[in-house]
Amino acid sequence: MIQNEITKNICSRRSVRKYSGEPISKDAVSAMLECARFAPSGLNNQPWRFIIVDNAGNCDDKEIGRQLSELTHYSDIVMSAPLLIAVFLDTAASYHREKDLMAIGACIQNILLSAHSIGLGTVWLGEILKNKDQVSKILEAPGTFELAAVIAVGKPVEKSTDSGCSSRRPLNEIVFRK
Amino acid sequence: MIQNEITKNICSRRSVRKYSGEPISKDAVSAMLECARFAPSGLNNQPWRFIIVDNAGNCDDKEIGRQLSELTHYSDIVMSAPLLIAVFLDTAASYHREKDLMAIGACIQNILLSAHSIGLGTVWLGEILKNKDQVSKILEAPGTFELAAVIAVGKPVEKSTDSGCSSRRPLNEIVFRK
Repeated sequence: MIQNEITKNICSRRSVRKYSGEPISKDAVSAMLECARFAPSGLNNQPWRFIIVDNAGNCDDKEIGRQLSELTHYSDIVMSAPLLIAVFLDTAASYHREKDLMAIGACIQNILLSAHSIGLGTVWLGEILKNKDQVSKILEAPGTFELAAVIAVGKPVEKSTDSGCSSRRPLNEIVFRK
Repeated sequence: MIQNEITKNICSRRSVRKYSGEPISKDAVSAMLECARFAPSGLNNQPWRFIIVDNAGNCDDKEIGRQLSELTHYSDIVMSAPLLIAVFLDTAASYHREKDLMAIGACIQNILLSAHSIGLGTVWLGEILKNKDQVSKILEAPGTFELAAVIAVGKPVEKSTDSGCSSRRPLNEIVFRK
């Protein structure tokens, strides 16, 4: 198989759920967001919006992180991640809900991959969507913003390994040829 | 800003709509599909399925490509791309439609990024979804497969440039801080 830095980065990325408390640099945040905005979208409508919570920074943000942590089963992850990126679909920019959701998935993947490439670990939190309206309220998101995911970001305390629930179906179960 | 091979690959990828007729090697197809399957998904349910059309290969596949080309405004792209990857959501594997669609978006992005990294151009075709049932019929997709996108793949005939509709909103229009 063809392998290069890109395919290795894609295939070695795994969810990371334990972080050192070390803050995430502004440069790293910029790199992730810059990659996010270069995702493709239908009609190039770029329906993604982000609210950043600097969970290792000032007390106000930490209090917001604490409030968010109460809205999910994964409160430890949300509390301990030095950075949270709340990703929204701006329904005011939406043109086709299903295509917009896929575009946001592509955008999130750009964040996860760029983070992984600079030594940061991430986990894509979806379960918190059960309380998406409360998340929006805490983050004071504009009324047209609909929560799509929260991404927890931090320096991994241990190297993630491809094991357990990270396994993948083999290609012959998912690929068909005409 | 932090830049590396990964972030450069992400930020330089653009849709490519004109291809040389050159067939896509099996190794290249494997690399793209391998990257596809390492996308993240909620509960690791991996709801993506693929049907590959070797549009530069045997006559049967070419006839299928021709039939698909009649279902979209972008028939020239579908006719001229040496490879088509139809991406489906397997509704039998689905657990949360919106999260599944985002996972499929992440998976598609892995295909586009890995293709770009090995010198292939792609375009994510969404407009053809207006005829998704007919696409499924032509591809003889199982009844639980729902078309999510068709990706056209080929060697670019010219270098794509960051212009026109490829422009992106600046970060200050899409990022908010708490």
